[in-house]
Amino acid sequence: MQKIFISDLSQHVGQEITLKGWLYNKRSSGKIKFLILRDGTGYLQCVYFKGNVSDEIFNTADRIGQESSIEVTGKIKEEPRAIGGYEMDAIDLKVINETHEYPITPKEHGVEFLMDKRHLWLRSNRQVAIMRIRHRIVKAIRDFFDNKGFTLMDPPIITPAACEGTSTLFETEYFDLGKAYLTQSGQLYAEAGAMALGKVYTFGPTFRAEKSKTRRHLTEFWMVEPEVAFADLNDNMDLAEEFLEYVVQTVIKERESELKVLERDLSKLNNVKRPLPRISYDEAVEILKKNNIEFEYGNDLGGGDETIISEQFDRPVMVHHYPAAVKAFYMKRDPLKPEFALAVDILAPEGYGEIIGGSQREDSFDLLLQRIQEHNLPREAFEWYLDLRKFGSVPHSGFGLGLERTVAWICGLDHIRETIPFPRMIYRNTP
Amino acid sequence: MQKIFISDLSQHVGQEITLKGWLYNKRSSGKIKFLILRDGTGYLQCVYFKGNVSDEIFNTADRIGQESSIEVTGKIKEEPRAIGGYEMDAIDLKVINETHEYPITPKEHGVEFLMDKRHLWLRSNRQVAIMRIRHRIVKAIRDFFDNKGFTLMDPPIITPAACEGTSTLFETEYFDLGKAYLTQSGQLYAEAGAMALGKVYTFGPTFRAEKSKTRRHLTEFWMVEPEVAFADLNDNMDLAEEFLEYVVQTVIKERESELKVLERDLSKLNNVKRPLPRISYDEAVEILKKNNIEFEYGNDLGGGDETIISEQFDRPVMVHHYPAAVKAFYMKRDPLKPEFALAVDILAPEGYGEIIGGSQREDSFDLLLQRIQEHNLPREAFEWYLDLRKFGSVPHSGFGLGLERTVAWICGLDHIRETIPFPRMIYRNTP
Repeated sequence: MQKIFISDLSQHVGQEITLKGWLYNKRSSGKIKFLILRDGTGYLQCVYFKGNVSDEIFNTADRIGQESSIEVTGKIKEEPRAIGGYEMDAIDLKVINETHEYPITPKEHGVEFLMDKRHLWLRSNRQVAIMRIRHRIVKAIRDFFDNKGFTLMDPPIITPAACEGTSTLFETEYFDLGKAYLTQSGQLYAEAGAMALGKVYTFGPTFRAEKSKTRRHLTEFWMVEPEVAFADLNDNMDLAEEFLEYVVQTVIKERESELKVLERDLSKLNNVKRPLPRISYDEAVEILKKNNIEFEYGNDLGGGDETIISEQFDRPVMVHHYPAAVKAFYMKRDPLKPEFALAVDILAPEGYGEIIGGSQREDSFDLLLQRIQEHNLPREAFEWYLDLRKFGSVPHSGFGLGLERTVAWICGLDHIRETIPFPRMIYRNTP
Repeated sequence: MQKIFISDLSQHVGQEITLKGWLYNKRSSGKIKFLILRDGTGYLQCVYFKGNVSDEIFNTADRIGQESSIEVTGKIKEEPRAIGGYEMDAIDLKVINETHEYPITPKEHGVEFLMDKRHLWLRSNRQVAIMRIRHRIVKAIRDFFDNKGFTLMDPPIITPAACEGTSTLFETEYFDLGKAYLTQSGQLYAEAGAMALGKVYTFGPTFRAEKSKTRRHLTEFWMVEPEVAFADLNDNMDLAEEFLEYVVQTVIKERESELKVLERDLSKLNNVKRPLPRISYDEAVEILKKNNIEFEYGNDLGGGDETIISEQFDRPVMVHHYPAAVKAFYMKRDPLKPEFALAVDILAPEGYGEIIGGSQREDSFDLLLQRIQEHNLPREAFEWYLDLRKFGSVPHSGFGLGLERTVAWICGLDHIRETIPFPRMIYRNTP
C-alpha cells in the first residue's frame, strides 16, 4: 500500500521519495517538463530536467497523457510558488497505465457531458474539494451529536405505509407483503428511539419521487434528524443553532484550502454563530409586506419569499410559529394560539433556502389521533406511532437537516447536483 | 431541555436534583417504594419513604404503572448495591403521563409479539444496550477510516442496472427512465472514488431481496466498504485486520457495561488482535477433510464449512485465494494461478460466519471486459466501470463489512433481528 502521500510532504523535505498517483496536468519549458501529480490528498509539481534523467524517462514524461497512472521518484523541496508549496526534483518516472484522450480536459465542458462522465469528473480539483468538504460536514454532524450523548438510530429505508399519499414515493414490491415505499424521513422512527434512549439522531438516505426539476432538488438525499425527549420548541431552536454553528465553524477551520479551491466567500459563513435571529411567521410576513412582496397570509413561505426574508439578516434566520394548516399533522400546536404550529424552519443566507425544518411533536394521544383523522390518514398504519403517546408520552422535539443543501450552501454551489458523488434527479439515475 | 442525566450522577452526589424519565420497574417493602427510573443513559433507584413525602406522592408512587413518564426530585447518594451505583432519596414525584397496562412486562414474551411492538421493545435494558453498542461500532468504523485519511463517498441507493440478474433486487419505477434497483453494494462506485481520492469508504444501507429466512439474513442492512488505490491483496488483508482489531477493541473498552448487560463472554473478543491467521482456500479445504466434512473441491464454502474452519482458530480467520469460478466477475485473478481469485473472506469465530468479503479488483481493461462477457453481463451498463480501467487504471483493493452481522457477533446475539432498530426481513416490514 502507498505509504507516503502528498499531504505528508512537510515531513519529507530534503528526502528522496516515491509517490504514486495520476498525471493531473503538464507543461513544458524548453528542456524542462513539469508534471503535476495528484494522489487524492493533494497536488505536486514534479520537475524533469533533460540531462538529469535518461532520454527514455524524459520522452515518457513528454508522451504520457492526462490521468496516466504513474510512479514518480525524486527529492522534495519547499517551493512556495508551486501548487501545494512543494516541488519534486524528479529522477525517475514509471508508468503504471498510460492514458491518452482522457475525455475531461481543462477546456470547458457542458454539464450533461460532465454528468455522464461523473465517475471521471470526480477526479477534478473542484469535485475532490467538494467531496472532502462533504465528508467533513458529515463528520462534524456526527461528532456534534456523539459528543452531546445522542445515540445513533438508523431508521428503516423500506417502510410499509404510504402515509401521506403515494404521489412522491418510490414504490417496490415486498415479497408477499405487497407494496412498500422508500422512506421520506426517519422522524417517526426517531421518536420511538427518543422514548427509549432520550436523545437520538438518524442519518441516512431519504427519497422523494417529486417531479421537481430545480437546482435544489434531488430524488435521493441524506438527512440527519435529531429527536429529543423532554424538549420543547425553544430547546429545539437552541439545539439547532448550536448545531449549525458547530458544523459551519468546524468546516471553515478544517477545510480551508478546499473552500479556497471553490473560491468560497467566507464572510457570510463566518457569521454563522449564536444567537441566530428568531422571528415568528407573522414577523416574516411583515418583512415581505415591507418589501412589497405579494403574499397571502396563511400560506406557506415560497422559495422567493424565503430569499427576501433571509436577505434581511447576516446569518441563518429561524422562522417559528407557522400556521398549523400548512404544516405536518404530527406537529404540536401552541396551546395559547392553536392556529399556529410549534414549528421552526431555518433559512440559509444567500438564497440557499430552508436547510432545517423541525417542530415540537404532538404528545397528546387524543390530539394526535384527531390530526390523523383530519388528514384522512389510515389509523392502522399509525397505531405504533400512537402507542408512543399511550405509553409514557413526553414533550419532545426534533428537526431535520438536508445534507446536500447544506453542502451546496457551505461550498457556495449553484446547483445541488455537485454535492453528492452520484446524484439522482428526475431525469438521471446514471452512472 | 433536560440538563442532568443519570450518566452524570457522579458529579451530583450529595446534591438535590430533578431528573426526568420513565418508570422502568418498581417494588415495595412496607413503608418504602422503590421506583427504578430510566432516562436512556442509565437507571436510578428512587426511594420514597412514607412520612418523608406527602401521602399524595406516596400513593402516586404506588399507583403509576411501568413506563409512566415522570419527574423525580431528591438527593443523590452513592449506593454500591443499587443498579448503576447511586440512589435517590426522593422528596418529590411529578407524573407527566400516567401509563397503565404497558404491553411489555418483565415476563417472557414471544418473539413475534416483541417484533410487533418493536417501537416499545427498544426501551428494554437489553435493546438499549444493543443500540448503544451498535452506535459505538458505527463510530469506531468511521473513526478508523477518518483517522487514516480515507474520504467518505456516499454511494447511490437507486441504481440503474440489474447487473447480476434481478432475482435478488428490489425494483422501483424511476420516472420516465424505466425500472431502477436498490443497491446491493457501493463497491463499484467506491472504485471510481478511489481513483479520484486515493482512499475512500462508503457506508450506507444495502438491499437483498433474497428469500432467505435465516437468523443471519436481513433484506436491508448497512455495509461499510473501503476501497484503496495502489493496494494489493496483502495490503487489503493488512487493512482488514487492523480495522477489525480497532473496532472490536474500541467497543470492548467503550461499551463494557452494555456488553455486561448482554452477558457477553469477552474472552473470544479480547483475542481479536493482529495478526489474524491467513489461510488459503486450499488450506481451508484441508481443514474440512481432516474434520471428515464432505466437501467438493472447487465449491464455495457453506455456512457449516465456515463454522468448522473458524473453530480451529482463537480469532477471526482470513481465507484467501478462492476458486475464481465461485467469486464475482470484478475480482482480479492471481497472475501465477489464474484459476484463483485474489479474494479474501474473513470468518468470525463462534459460528457468526463471514463478516468481511473483499478482493483485489481486476485492473486490466481487456480482462475485465472478458469477464463481463463471460458472465453475460450487459457491457453498456458497465461502460463507466470499464472507463476506470481505460483512464489511469491502478492496482486497487477493497472489502465490505456487514454492520449487522458484526453487531450480532460483538453482542453475542442469536439472531440478527435485534441488531438494527427496525429490522426488515422477508416476512416483516413493520412497524
